[in-house]
Amino acid sequence: MVSAVGDTPPAKPVYYSDYLQLDRLLGSQQLASAADGEPVHDEMLFIIVHQAYELWFKQILWELDEVAKLLAPARVAETAMLRIVARLERITEIQKLLIEQITVLETMTPLDFLEFRNYLIPASGFQSVQFRLIENRMGVRPEDRIKLAGNPYTAALSEADRGRVEESEALPNIFDLVEAWLERTPFLDHGDFHFWDIYQAAVHEMLEHDRGVVATNPNLSEPERESQLKSFGQTFSLYEAVFDETKHEALVSAGERRLSHRAFQAALFINLYRDEPALQEPFRLLTLLMDIDQGFTSWRYRHALMTQRMIGRRVGTGGSAGAAYLTRSADRNRVFGDLFQLSTFMIPRSLLPALPVDLERTMRFRFEDV
Amino acid sequence: MVSAVGDTPPAKPVYYSDYLQLDRLLGSQQLASAADGEPVHDEMLFIIVHQAYELWFKQILWELDEVAKLLAPARVAETAMLRIVARLERITEIQKLLIEQITVLETMTPLDFLEFRNYLIPASGFQSVQFRLIENRMGVRPEDRIKLAGNPYTAALSEADRGRVEESEALPNIFDLVEAWLERTPFLDHGDFHFWDIYQAAVHEMLEHDRGVVATNPNLSEPERESQLKSFGQTFSLYEAVFDETKHEALVSAGERRLSHRAFQAALFINLYRDEPALQEPFRLLTLLMDIDQGFTSWRYRHALMTQRMIGRRVGTGGSAGAAYLTRSADRNRVFGDLFQLSTFMIPRSLLPALPVDLERTMRFRFEDV
Amino acid sequence: MVSAVGDTPPAKPVYYSDYLQLDRLLGSQQLASAADGEPVHDEMLFIIVHQAYELWFKQILWELDEVAKLLAPARVAETAMLRIVARLERITEIQKLLIEQITVLETMTPLDFLEFRNYLIPASGFQSVQFRLIENRMGVRPEDRIKLAGNPYTAALSEADRGRVEESEALPNIFDLVEAWLERTPFLDHGDFHFWDIYQAAVHEMLEHDRGVVATNPNLSEPERESQLKSFGQTFSLYEAVFDETKHEALVSAGERRLSHRAFQAALFINLYRDEPALQEPFRLLTLLMDIDQGFTSWRYRHALMTQRMIGRRVGTGGSAGAAYLTRSADRNRVFGDLFQLSTFMIPRSLLPALPVDLERTMRFRFEDV
Amino acid sequence: MVSAVGDTPPAKPVYYSDYLQLDRLLGSQQLASAADGEPVHDEMLFIIVHQAYELWFKQILWELDEVAKLLAPARVAETAMLRIVARLERITEIQKLLIEQITVLETMTPLDFLEFRNYLIPASGFQSVQFRLIENRMGVRPEDRIKLAGNPYTAALSEADRGRVEESEALPNIFDLVEAWLERTPFLDHGDFHFWDIYQAAVHEMLEHDRGVVATNPNLSEPERESQLKSFGQTFSLYEAVFDETKHEALVSAGERRLSHRAFQAALFINLYRDEPALQEPFRLLTLLMDIDQGFTSWRYRHALMTQRMIGRRVGTGGSAGAAYLTRSADRNRVFGDLFQLSTFMIPRSLLPALPVDLERTMRFRFEDV
Repeated sequence: MVSAVGDTPPAKPVYYSDYLQLDRLLGSQQLASAADGEPVHDEMLFIIVHQAYELWFKQILWELDEVAKLLAPARVAETAMLRIVARLERITEIQKLLIEQITVLETMTPLDFLEFRNYLIPASGFQSVQFRLIENRMGVRPEDRIKLAGNPYTAALSEADRGRVEESEALPNIFDLVEAWLERTPFLDHGDFHFWDIYQAAVHEMLEHDRGVVATNPNLSEPERESQLKSFGQTFSLYEAVFDETKHEALVSAGERRLSHRAFQAALFINLYRDEPALQEPFRLLTLLMDIDQGFTSWRYRHALMTQRMIGRRVGTGGSAGAAYLTRSADRNRVFGDLFQLSTFMIPRSLLPALPVDLERTMRFRFEDV
Repeated sequence: MVSAVGDTPPAKPVYYSDYLQLDRLLGSQQLASAADGEPVHDEMLFIIVHQAYELWFKQILWELDEVAKLLAPARVAETAMLRIVARLERITEIQKLLIEQITVLETMTPLDFLEFRNYLIPASGFQSVQFRLIENRMGVRPEDRIKLAGNPYTAALSEADRGRVEESEALPNIFDLVEAWLERTPFLDHGDFHFWDIYQAAVHEMLEHDRGVVATNPNLSEPERESQLKSFGQTFSLYEAVFDETKHEALVSAGERRLSHRAFQAALFINLYRDEPALQEPFRLLTLLMDIDQGFTSWRYRHALMTQRMIGRRVGTGGSAGAAYLTRSADRNRVFGDLFQLSTFMIPRSLLPALPVDLERTMRFRFEDV
Repeated sequence: MVSAVGDTPPAKPVYYSDYLQLDRLLGSQQLASAADGEPVHDEMLFIIVHQAYELWFKQILWELDEVAKLLAPARVAETAMLRIVARLERITEIQKLLIEQITVLETMTPLDFLEFRNYLIPASGFQSVQFRLIENRMGVRPEDRIKLAGNPYTAALSEADRGRVEESEALPNIFDLVEAWLERTPFLDHGDFHFWDIYQAAVHEMLEHDRGVVATNPNLSEPERESQLKSFGQTFSLYEAVFDETKHEALVSAGERRLSHRAFQAALFINLYRDEPALQEPFRLLTLLMDIDQGFTSWRYRHALMTQRMIGRRVGTGGSAGAAYLTRSADRNRVFGDLFQLSTFMIPRSLLPALPVDLERTMRFRFEDV
Repeated sequence: MVSAVGDTPPAKPVYYSDYLQLDRLLGSQQLASAADGEPVHDEMLFIIVHQAYELWFKQILWELDEVAKLLAPARVAETAMLRIVARLERITEIQKLLIEQITVLETMTPLDFLEFRNYLIPASGFQSVQFRLIENRMGVRPEDRIKLAGNPYTAALSEADRGRVEESEALPNIFDLVEAWLERTPFLDHGDFHFWDIYQAAVHEMLEHDRGVVATNPNLSEPERESQLKSFGQTFSLYEAVFDETKHEALVSAGERRLSHRAFQAALFINLYRDEPALQEPFRLLTLLMDIDQGFTSWRYRHALMTQRMIGRRVGTGGSAGAAYLTRSADRNRVFGDLFQLSTFMIPRSLLPALPVDLERTMRFRFEDV
């Protein structure tokens, strides 16, 4: 902590330990195992790790709240983009910490854990209210939740906590806000230019060209040729499902896509033409949403591996199936899965249609001579 | 958190959020900038990072306290070695987190910091009582401390905190305990065998051999030969200072060595003959002490880089010289510097004298046929 | 690189760049995309990352080869334990690098990859001979391999490479060597003491006690009580399968266990009584085998996430199903899964039967007064 | 490696191991210690680590070359900014690997190193041509180099290598290119608006205000008040040196600043008004240059710690003073030190003068209604 000229000192001098409320913070580690006499050494680590998690969860919520606020206006200010992106970048750095903290927790061996885990029943990490709030703020939907023994995901919570979590389901979430922002992208239709038309044309051309190469490639045996042509057929049907809004909606209904057709187009456009100045920060934003999704997925996965190692096939203290549950939920609860699908539909830069000059111009800065 | 058969459930069911005292923990972030109206967004990060540091400092102290307790007996139980080593390993993992947390803090830019740093005056990171306790527990001596503007290192602390820190100077510290443990190493003199004699003989032989090689190496020009022979002279005087207890004491008085001569010998012995079963854990222990020393040094250095970037040449809020102070103190406050000097005095395995069979035997397990 | 007294200089002066063969090393990046004119910028990264992987794979093989050699004798020297453990620790550090390298590769976006991936067909990461050698050296069995479109895992390799990989299946692998070493553990039966008997007795006592607590716990509703008692039943059957060699063999046949019954017992014994000096390094060894298993699993998983992000649902260049394949094989190809199951069968230290004094004595050092 | 529809397969099928030239790559590890018979186990690690370093150095050079090319035009295209920034971000990720690799190398103990280091004399890490090329490409000047025993930094290189390195001193370096790019910033003077005037006025106002607060603060004792007012005087002189071009030039001559006065102003402007769309990527670029500078500094520092631990006070194989040299050169060879000084001269956002509307307008996108 540092002071400087240019700073007006506070009326009362600030004391580090008061400012950080260290009395409360460092007085909040009550070892349950101490109730019976000698505290179990490793219970302190268990508490500290989980408290550090909760501090960081609070910080992530703080960042997500601001991102939601910045994304809320009907028109997101371009001057806000750097800030939005910076908040998301910070979350990715915090996620790396979350994962590193598992390594620290793994310095506790199963035998050490066994010495105090009976004191914790039925407390369970599934009761982290803040982590549920993060998931809801990101855009995990109630219907995406895995039921625990037929119970809703909030079953293990106290009534007050359950209320808070359920209320958060109704708050504007990052997924919805980003989807709406994508849908408003002004460049997809510009005068005679329609991105979706030229995109489809370019894909057709590309596929026809590839088909021709395979059909005439002398290095291929007939079975190989047939197999490759058949694989083209499959690919083509993937593309068709993207071209066509009805088929896209069907994928959404089936739970395989989540973004609206328009938003999906915009996300693809931003990825393909990301070098345009007006798309540089939007491209970053989309990339960071994937990073964050992946960060939580990786954390859940590492957490599942750790739990498996710690308790084997025993039942979780919260009554859950423990490791198996965690592995499954690492795959679920992904919010921006659609963005990971975009790569399927990209076109190599060399085949990318040039944009009309006046569209390009509108995506440049005024000071530029375009 | 997990339960299991083999666990006796507690009388009252435990609730995650009560167990972790989350009400207190998550209610301890009071933004000073909020006093004037709108809170500054990044102050939350500033608080959370420093609170996370303090949680981890508490954990490190918890581990160091146990290590001190385990090292205290006149004879350290061999059955305790794994535990001592595991505690130290945990500290090194926590140190990695401490360093990673700087990366998170660096997502705050200098301009963002400037928005609330005036609220913190004169609070300062130098007021972390726990970090001072860690340093004292490790064995940083009062006389090693850099004075801040002529004041003792505890000057910025409240009276109560100062008392706690100054009392901790008198507690048994890891350096002293390890030194005493090293001095008790039973293998240095065993019947007719005296490690220090055979070590010196081996060094002499090695140096004579090297001198001969240089003297007759046809690839060397005369100036090169002279230069190398001169460099041998210098090396020899390094060794002499180690051979001779009086010279060693002089180095200690000059602040260039800290371990007693006997302890230094034992540390060298353990490093050279570490493959002996009875020396495997001791070798690990010495290695980890270096790792921890280096971990704190790296953390201080990274912290200094960060501060420099954040405040440039401004003055620290605590009135310190900021970055410059931190860089200096990264080099000081090293406790186990002697262990880093050991490599200077090692002998290649091929020249290492074999130990007498009955000495080897005593360092093996009873179940082995030796 | 550093020289020192105590070193005999080589006959010919060594030049850094010659020593490292940098001419060859740095002349081995031939961009396929350059064949058509302008090289694609990101292909360099693609090559360098994969070459760095192969360098580290070579290092891992080098370490595994030595570990295999050190574990091979009918009696593994206790003086070799530190070395074995150090080799395995090094592998875990290298694994962290392997995972970090994925982060570097992810700085290449799908669109960038699309610019040169057509030049690579049908080359595929599945053709890494060294990684297959590592897996075989670790103890992945041919029958554990997932078939790719009905083909053996070596199908994509050249004839020479296939030969090398298939030969490696027959080499002594770490799993087999560790299993044999565990089976030879001399402490399981010692005079009248039989670990397996006292372990079973302790488990029974523990289960009876827990059942009593549940049966009489006034905090439990009747349905909760019934549910918990039922869960005890399930746990008990888990234990029974461990107690009984025949049932254990059935699990082995079913592919749910791999270690022999005797080896499994020894691994449990080492974990429970790890504080005994003679078990400290063995405990470390078992822990590191889990770390390494988990390191490879994590790497495969992160690799699968990256591939999914890079190519979406496209087909892998080697014709594999790409990401889906990788996710599945991250779960398979685990070698020491049994060790992760050990935690299921642990007993809290407080219920752990004391060992007979003369058994303890044999696990201590001769120099100790026991 | 993956293939896809949309890819034209190459004429000849590509084989992974041929593509990566694994025969050469994996055939380039010749252990010097093997010349005398038994190779020393750890020499392989030593070679592999250094080879991995050289691969990554090649990649860093590849990125820097492209960045230099993209920064070279008299007007850097705004469409190139994302690409420039992405290249620099990649370098920072590679730097993390470089630092992690030290951890792997540290699994080799001093005693292990001693077994083969005599074979390396006088080869030395100082002979890494590529690292010198990187430094020169970044903008380390010949006059910044620390002399080794009076010799130029290229003295240990072969004639051919020395030639390459010396030639690289004359190539356009990132520092010069960035400085020129900063000097061309079009927004500093815009009609009647002159950034430097309003900046100076704002600083004066800020200082006067602070002086007033201190003068009248009833919480300050007289000595504290005097001390703080004196400290203001010092700060004011820091600012004056920045206001005045002549004084700035004097700092440049004294080696305390390096950027031209105009470039320094532009860097400050970009930092203060970074939310403007046209400054978002430039702000990122400046931040990344600091990250990279710091990355190399951290790497050098960690490398110095490692060397100190490995060889103690021995002399480096290249004849250098080893660790001491490395510590010093970690502090030197910083290229963008000026950017770290910017924080000294920042103004809190609340005191930041608003920009004229038409200047703001020119920094926005054409599609925006401004």
